[in-house]
Amino acid sequence: MKYYLRKTILSLLVCASLVTTGVVYSGYNNTAKASSTRPTVAEKLKTVTKTPKYVFLFIGDGMSYPQFQAASDYLGAVKQGNSPEILKGGEYLSFMNFPVAGSATTYDSTSFCPDSASTATSISTGHKTYSGVINMNEAKTEEFETVAEKLKKQLGYEIGVVTSVNLNHATPAAFYAHQPSRNNYYEIGLEMVESDFDYFAGGGLLDPNGKDGKSENVYEIAEKAGYTVADTKDEAEKVNGNTDKAIIIGETLADSDSLSYENDRESSEWALADYVKKGIEVLDNDKGFFMMVEGGKIDWACHANDAGSTIADTIALSNAVDEAIKFYNEHPDETLILVTGDHETGGLTIGFAGTDYDTYLANIQNQNISYAKYDSDYVAKYKENNTPFETVLKDIEDKFGLVAKENATSSTNEKLILTDYEYNKLKAAYDKTMSGEEVSKENQEEYVLYGTYEPLSVTITHILNNKSGINFSSYSHTGLPVAVFAKGAGESLFEGFYDNTDIYNNIAALMNLK
Amino acid sequence: MKYYLRKTILSLLVCASLVTTGVVYSGYNNTAKASSTRPTVAEKLKTVTKTPKYVFLFIGDGMSYPQFQAASDYLGAVKQGNSPEILKGGEYLSFMNFPVAGSATTYDSTSFCPDSASTATSISTGHKTYSGVINMNEAKTEEFETVAEKLKKQLGYEIGVVTSVNLNHATPAAFYAHQPSRNNYYEIGLEMVESDFDYFAGGGLLDPNGKDGKSENVYEIAEKAGYTVADTKDEAEKVNGNTDKAIIIGETLADSDSLSYENDRESSEWALADYVKKGIEVLDNDKGFFMMVEGGKIDWACHANDAGSTIADTIALSNAVDEAIKFYNEHPDETLILVTGDHETGGLTIGFAGTDYDTYLANIQNQNISYAKYDSDYVAKYKENNTPFETVLKDIEDKFGLVAKENATSSTNEKLILTDYEYNKLKAAYDKTMSGEEVSKENQEEYVLYGTYEPLSVTITHILNNKSGINFSSYSHTGLPVAVFAKGAGESLFEGFYDNTDIYNNIAALMNLK
Repeated sequence: MKYYLRKTILSLLVCASLVTTGVVYSGYNNTAKASSTRPTVAEKLKTVTKTPKYVFLFIGDGMSYPQFQAASDYLGAVKQGNSPEILKGGEYLSFMNFPVAGSATTYDSTSFCPDSASTATSISTGHKTYSGVINMNEAKTEEFETVAEKLKKQLGYEIGVVTSVNLNHATPAAFYAHQPSRNNYYEIGLEMVESDFDYFAGGGLLDPNGKDGKSENVYEIAEKAGYTVADTKDEAEKVNGNTDKAIIIGETLADSDSLSYENDRESSEWALADYVKKGIEVLDNDKGFFMMVEGGKIDWACHANDAGSTIADTIALSNAVDEAIKFYNEHPDETLILVTGDHETGGLTIGFAGTDYDTYLANIQNQNISYAKYDSDYVAKYKENNTPFETVLKDIEDKFGLVAKENATSSTNEKLILTDYEYNKLKAAYDKTMSGEEVSKENQEEYVLYGTYEPLSVTITHILNNKSGINFSSYSHTGLPVAVFAKGAGESLFEGFYDNTDIYNNIAALMNLK
Repeated sequence: MKYYLRKTILSLLVCASLVTTGVVYSGYNNTAKASSTRPTVAEKLKTVTKTPKYVFLFIGDGMSYPQFQAASDYLGAVKQGNSPEILKGGEYLSFMNFPVAGSATTYDSTSFCPDSASTATSISTGHKTYSGVINMNEAKTEEFETVAEKLKKQLGYEIGVVTSVNLNHATPAAFYAHQPSRNNYYEIGLEMVESDFDYFAGGGLLDPNGKDGKSENVYEIAEKAGYTVADTKDEAEKVNGNTDKAIIIGETLADSDSLSYENDRESSEWALADYVKKGIEVLDNDKGFFMMVEGGKIDWACHANDAGSTIADTIALSNAVDEAIKFYNEHPDETLILVTGDHETGGLTIGFAGTDYDTYLANIQNQNISYAKYDSDYVAKYKENNTPFETVLKDIEDKFGLVAKENATSSTNEKLILTDYEYNKLKAAYDKTMSGEEVSKENQEEYVLYGTYEPLSVTITHILNNKSGINFSSYSHTGLPVAVFAKGAGESLFEGFYDNTDIYNNIAALMNLK
């Protein structure tokens, strides 16, 4: 027996006769499917002793495993100097400690990389549909009733819808509207009022006067329908348990009339957690309530490949969940809290080709502005004033912590000093931004570098991300499954690996909805 | 009430007084931890009626959610023409249909992006340690007894260790060895023999004669110790239930003496599933057995950013799991099957900046070779013969399906035709490869493009990946949690979100190990 002889001769003979294409697929053996032993919902229901009277459904838009793990790792890194040591103590976001955690696939009828309309339709109604469609079938001929509508109609629950983005954006819309296109903002706004739900809170409506700006204002229609519409903090604070039904719009609106990114939020502004707290005050009643809360700007930050804002908004969502946990602690037998995402956005990875196994997540502390606010408050002025690159570099140091070599001092964190390669990338992006030229998809290289974002801003976050050991691979959504965390009455239904339509199916089974 | 007025004045006033750094972190509210309600293992144990007599632990090295979801989506795409339609029928890998699916965090004592030695130590012993260390504490002064050793000693189980890479590589080593460095291959080999385990099967040992090549051959030591050592298929076939203890080495060894990538495997070569089947034959006995099976080349393919080989080897692992499912079906009350990963490798994403929401996963069918075999069988010859680029392009078309414009015909799939940008990237990589120059980490741009891989080969797979809607962001491991699928006796212990050390803790609790 010779151990050192490579048996290449036989191998080559066989090789010559067996070369085929499609080898990847041909090897799949599909004979031993295990699906028969997955417990049915009915079986799982037998183990549930209490159905929940209070249901919280938190959706981190674009939030899958990478987003919350990055946020958790970031918190550990900040406390422990870029090492994971602290995680040994379970330094996770609170929902990561929920007793139940399952996973859900997110593909829709169009794509492995689905959109928020179709995925929210699946979560809200248990149906797959095309990207861009809100609660209608693929043919756009049939409307699906949502879990929120059913809970209101069949069980008399009060309903709340909270989001950090616009109240008629895809995810919140999927709980009350039925439209062939998520872009029918005015129609969605009208359906919001017609829903007669009890509490809406978040960013401002898009197209409140219709696409042409000439239709009757949705907020006025809402007031006529009996809604208290509050768009200042003072007014919002007056909304309470005695308010019949309320729409609260953030006093300070940011990009596209959404609420501020957590990174930009002033301490005087309500956080997402405050809207949830107010929601509990408004909705709490003897019959029960359902509140959907969307952390919508996690998605927006990931689209823009802004890791700092992604992490901050994920932590903000976790803080909002903490309000639900406090409520749970008062009503532990009757409350169910679900925390999930609709899909992953951006292809975020904790790890980057340039840093190998190293991460420097604490670097991200130095970012104190979102890409969007930097765009509106800085880049717009650069273009107006033709600001020189040297001046821009000072802002970049101030807002993102990245330091040009010539500005570095002995106390500068060397992990934040721009290399020549990074400096040149930044300069090229600055030139592109200042040129005002659009990035064309035909130019593959530029499109991958900048997507449809401001070249300067997206290059700043790319460099800070990469220097921190983080990367994004897309400006769109990806096909990663999402996590589903559950705590409270009926939690066990959400264990396992399943499709996102089962999130609806489980709630419906639990609440005996028809 | 004015709805259209943006309240920027107040916002600006507040802004001026509140600008701080470290905003991301300061917003975290840590007051509502929910960890108190996570069920303890003891509580979960109360629901377990049977402890398993037969335990299978499958570890996809480098396999997390992206790897198996990509493999599953690929299968759907091939059947259904790049659309997810087929997934509605639950077209998943069989383990994705297991009744229980949890998630585990993977960080080690050194890094959020851990290595296979430390993570396998956690899975095998319940301890965190430094990257590179096999079953020893951080100080490298204390050895940890492994789950396999305990099962053998305390319960008299027979033990099997199967891997597609070298039998003394980190993951298999973590079930029998205790070394301060995973690179102590000879010492690990000696511990393999000393383990007295019953069945080893996979790729050849590294350094079987020691680092200097002069030490006593490990295989010979093994034979003296009573092992049947088989390194031909004929010999392997003769190993059976009557063989006392056996070491089977693949007859045809590939890169670094590992088993062939599934994409390169001849039909005459045993698949990973065959080694598992043989393992069951050898190990099946009245007291019980434990078999660890590693799909080790999923990791190697991901390191090299070779999506086609990643998918093929993930499917091969699934086929190997199917052998365990068949055994389960005969012993459903006494068998536990676990399928997990040790960490994610490569930052694989289903989605890429250049293709937005589109994927063309079926493109990957056209790849019929691994990057490694392409390196050894083609690139080596290009260098030897100074093969012109035009000839290389023909091979690339034949082996990977990518077609240069000038070679395209009316029947060419246009999604596989190289754009000018891609063509130029490929040509630059060809030039770099032919130059024989090493890629230096100091050259950030080149290092991100090629890592430590053959520039030509890694650029081919990058282009095919990207044209299929897939991307990698690293040549190393990343910090994504892994999935833990479970089926059979005691499965419920593996529900939820936990640390990888709990995989050991759960098995130990289930089997009442001390």
